[in-house]
Amino acid sequence: MKALWLENQKLSLRHDLPVPEPRPGYALVRVRLAGICATDFEMTRGYYPFTGILGHEFVGEVVAAPDGSAWMGKRVVGEINIACGECATCTRGYPTHCERRAVLGIRAVHGAFAEYLELPLKNLHEVPDAVPDDIAVFCEPLAAALEITQQVHIQPGERVLLVGAGRLGQLIAQVIALTGCALQAVIRHDYQRKILEQHGIETISEGMVRTGGWDKVVEVTGSPGGFNLARRAVRPGGMIVLKSTFKDDVQVNLSSIVVDEITLVGSRCGPFEPALALLASGQVDPSVLISARYPLDEALEAFRYAGEPGVLKVLLAPAD
Amino acid sequence: MKALWLENQKLSLRHDLPVPEPRPGYALVRVRLAGICATDFEMTRGYYPFTGILGHEFVGEVVAAPDGSAWMGKRVVGEINIACGECATCTRGYPTHCERRAVLGIRAVHGAFAEYLELPLKNLHEVPDAVPDDIAVFCEPLAAALEITQQVHIQPGERVLLVGAGRLGQLIAQVIALTGCALQAVIRHDYQRKILEQHGIETISEGMVRTGGWDKVVEVTGSPGGFNLARRAVRPGGMIVLKSTFKDDVQVNLSSIVVDEITLVGSRCGPFEPALALLASGQVDPSVLISARYPLDEALEAFRYAGEPGVLKVLLAPAD
Repeated sequence: MKALWLENQKLSLRHDLPVPEPRPGYALVRVRLAGICATDFEMTRGYYPFTGILGHEFVGEVVAAPDGSAWMGKRVVGEINIACGECATCTRGYPTHCERRAVLGIRAVHGAFAEYLELPLKNLHEVPDAVPDDIAVFCEPLAAALEITQQVHIQPGERVLLVGAGRLGQLIAQVIALTGCALQAVIRHDYQRKILEQHGIETISEGMVRTGGWDKVVEVTGSPGGFNLARRAVRPGGMIVLKSTFKDDVQVNLSSIVVDEITLVGSRCGPFEPALALLASGQVDPSVLISARYPLDEALEAFRYAGEPGVLKVLLAPAD
Repeated sequence: MKALWLENQKLSLRHDLPVPEPRPGYALVRVRLAGICATDFEMTRGYYPFTGILGHEFVGEVVAAPDGSAWMGKRVVGEINIACGECATCTRGYPTHCERRAVLGIRAVHGAFAEYLELPLKNLHEVPDAVPDDIAVFCEPLAAALEITQQVHIQPGERVLLVGAGRLGQLIAQVIALTGCALQAVIRHDYQRKILEQHGIETISEGMVRTGGWDKVVEVTGSPGGFNLARRAVRPGGMIVLKSTFKDDVQVNLSSIVVDEITLVGSRCGPFEPALALLASGQVDPSVLISARYPLDEALEAFRYAGEPGVLKVLLAPAD
């Protein structure tokens, strides 16, 4: 089958890969649409030493499943963490943090930029008919955005600042706006402002960030500059949610974290079912984030385009 | 009056200082007993550029108060943050984080290692008769320990690790044990173990710290080594409470904080009334922490002794 292969931080389009033969408990999924995200770019810069098929955002169709499973033919999205179910972390009830987890297209298992992938049945979620493919493909990043409100109680009226209004930041903005908080987003580019304002979200420039002006700040840049801006913006006693990974260690003034009683919350993958519900109801609308759709054959060009300034979500369609 | 003076990071005993003349809304307090804490040592190492009388843990007696105040003659402890009441942080309801705050013996106002001090009436708390001076003097650090359970919900049965079993750590251990959690404390010295075990608290050595073995970790060392131990000990999805200030910035792997969804909580000063209640009921007993009592005249020798290994709380008594 065709797939986009990562090896030694280099991408290549391959046509010689075998269709996966699903292990027991796994389904074979034909990929209908997949999305390129910032983590994929970081993988090409060595964020994690991975050799294999890249990609973890997808919507697909179950074409093989064990024991005449009821999943056959279903349109699905899939959670990307494959837990062992047996380690201390799993048995304590935190499977997304499994010590031996594989992660779709990131660690130990092939990903979604391919004609087919395999995933455990327990990772799958059926997509409601009301959600078309090009919306369902946003389920994984939207779930990650919802992890914020899963972990943190954002109250109506609270002053919340979003630092980083790119692909994931836009979804986070829509999710946080649903809480009724007073949300503002720091924008660097006019296209970011336009999309946010379409959703009624107030934008400010970096120069308008007041010291200590926000109760909670969500950092989505994964850069030391973004972290420092977030640190400056949060009020004493406030909270910073860290939503993006950082390439290197960051020098942190922990004393000021103590004195100002700041809370830092690391946030990663989130719940799929609420994400599907928000997509089905239209309360979150990612369609405006789609910049382009490419056939999988043109995946290398798609990657190049996805890295251009102002480009948000680029989709890959194996069947196009 | 006599007082212990800090200037250019050097301590000196002075006899030439004027008794404070309390400003409007302030009381004049005769200091009965004061405690030396780790922050005082950090002040002598330049933690904060302060010139004046050191000391912020005390119990005293109101000897002058405005308008025939009902406070006259009362035995009191006092909150150390003096808020302006007018800045944005104060008016939003976070006076302990006042942007213009003075802090007793730490920032802008003279402290408690003196015969007399002045504090706003609103900072004072009357000490119940059942609490003798050498217990009441622990109110400020005990309140700081209680700030942890004020900020963080520690559930019965949760696995909690304390890193740092010195002066403040011992009080924190007693407070956290009251939650019914499964508390263990990392000890470095046999005297730490003995005091903790007197209070039924389990101790372990650093070598017994398992990676990811605790739901919550409280860091009280203020050292990069302590932080790294806490980071290693906390489970994915767990929490680290930072209770001590750090002299320098610390290199933090923020990506691992994101991926493991760790929460860091900075924690500083806490509520005095609950602290007094726990001292009055005997549910927290700091008496075992008293290593020595010196007259204020011997404050320099007291400081030297307080810095020796194995020494916990050293008290200064102006009237001795």
